[in-house]
Amino acid sequence: MIGADMSNHKPCIGVFDSGVGGLTVLKALLEVIPGADYLYFGDTARLPYGSKSAETVTKYAVGACEYLHSHGTDLLVIACNTATALALPKIERVVGVGVVGVIEPGAQSASGASQNRKVVVIGTDATISSHAYLRALKSRGVEAREKACPLLVPLVEEGWIAHPVTEQVARIYLDEAFAGEFESADVLVLGCTHYPLLKPILRRVAPAQVKIVDSAESTARAVAQQIRLGPKLSGAESVNEERGRGSSHIRFFATDSVQKFRSLGERFLGRKIEDVQHVDLKE
Amino acid sequence: MIGADMSNHKPCIGVFDSGVGGLTVLKALLEVIPGADYLYFGDTARLPYGSKSAETVTKYAVGACEYLHSHGTDLLVIACNTATALALPKIERVVGVGVVGVIEPGAQSASGASQNRKVVVIGTDATISSHAYLRALKSRGVEAREKACPLLVPLVEEGWIAHPVTEQVARIYLDEAFAGEFESADVLVLGCTHYPLLKPILRRVAPAQVKIVDSAESTARAVAQQIRLGPKLSGAESVNEERGRGSSHIRFFATDSVQKFRSLGERFLGRKIEDVQHVDLKE
Repeated sequence: MIGADMSNHKPCIGVFDSGVGGLTVLKALLEVIPGADYLYFGDTARLPYGSKSAETVTKYAVGACEYLHSHGTDLLVIACNTATALALPKIERVVGVGVVGVIEPGAQSASGASQNRKVVVIGTDATISSHAYLRALKSRGVEAREKACPLLVPLVEEGWIAHPVTEQVARIYLDEAFAGEFESADVLVLGCTHYPLLKPILRRVAPAQVKIVDSAESTARAVAQQIRLGPKLSGAESVNEERGRGSSHIRFFATDSVQKFRSLGERFLGRKIEDVQHVDLKE
Repeated sequence: MIGADMSNHKPCIGVFDSGVGGLTVLKALLEVIPGADYLYFGDTARLPYGSKSAETVTKYAVGACEYLHSHGTDLLVIACNTATALALPKIERVVGVGVVGVIEPGAQSASGASQNRKVVVIGTDATISSHAYLRALKSRGVEAREKACPLLVPLVEEGWIAHPVTEQVARIYLDEAFAGEFESADVLVLGCTHYPLLKPILRRVAPAQVKIVDSAESTARAVAQQIRLGPKLSGAESVNEERGRGSSHIRFFATDSVQKFRSLGERFLGRKIEDVQHVDLKE
């Protein structure tokens, strides 16, 4: 639920990710809720989360979310699949505002899109090991096969977005995932915020009947819905209708180099990144 | 130089790396100086260092080395190329014992192996951007071309050590490196502790005249020499001659999961890893 003062000021949405991948979620949010202000936190000094243990990811994610919360966010979006999978309940306990992760909205969309109730989820090692998608889909009557694809993030970060090697790696992963009883799966869930940049390759490599579900878009819609359903309906509605596009103020925080965040981040956000501040987080 | 009490007790050598890659250096040390005790620190919660800024890498590396030093090491080995490239001078100022990095020994071996004074160095983004190898080789009259190969570490960690995709990626990187005026280079320096696991592939992909220099082995020899040349010659000598193989006590520290360190680490060390302790480092 959203803070009680939502109707009296422009709402401020905090978006947290281990790095720049969550900017694909911010991009979707800016389209769906253009009138809000945004704070984005990228824990770039300690990324990637996807290969690390649940304890470490939880510690890092909670620290970052407390930081965002202390800067006055009314609603927190966990744009990182791994942090959502491993740390969402702990984050909800620690911060006093509404928290939206990427997994429930992604599972909801996948369930809506799947005719034959069989889907494949790809993600990092940590996300897949947590089985968070499996549980979220099972509760909707959908069978899931989960497949860790640890090389896709480094390939995106190397800039090999349309490279034959990336296509070959994606083919190896997806051939394994869409095999046996999941040959007939009809949805592919992109369970990592880096993967939307590989959509053209994944489209070519996945079986023809497969629809691709991108958690970034589903999450933005879930946030918009939560704002509309929040305790101060009239104030929240005005966010969309009165303030219009382009009026958002966006501030960025990064734990590693500000310059690196800016240059890599613009590829994910698809627009210029100006106001980035370096943050040192104690563990 | 080595601590003054070296002759009165079994020397304790601290080995620091961002993760498990430095275990290739520990492995080489155990062969060359089997009688010493070892402390190994892997900063697995914050790896990789290779894609991060100089400030962040320095902060992390100094904290880890202070931790090792506080546990009584007589000599510190920086087994991580990136930490050596970016943080060695700062570490030397902060800890009060001798510090050996991997770059000077690697450059020394490369210089000794190169007939035509042209070598190629491969490493992480951060190591290559620092130009530490370029400077170390130039001071020995050797021309170097440096090439960042950011995908090789994830490929090793995925376990694709003999995989056709890894060979293809290595070929792309090395074809670019051994082109133009470096077509005649006759040495390839493995400027990252993960790369020794890819030696068979790199051997196939590199031009036929190329010798491969592994900093792990050169560093172990440099440490042995420093111990022999240390202030307490007699005590240090006894390490090799009297105590013999297998008498080393090795303790491991890791900042992420102890279990993950153990299972991934055994691949690099080539022997069982027993005594691992989890460490929380404040930044």
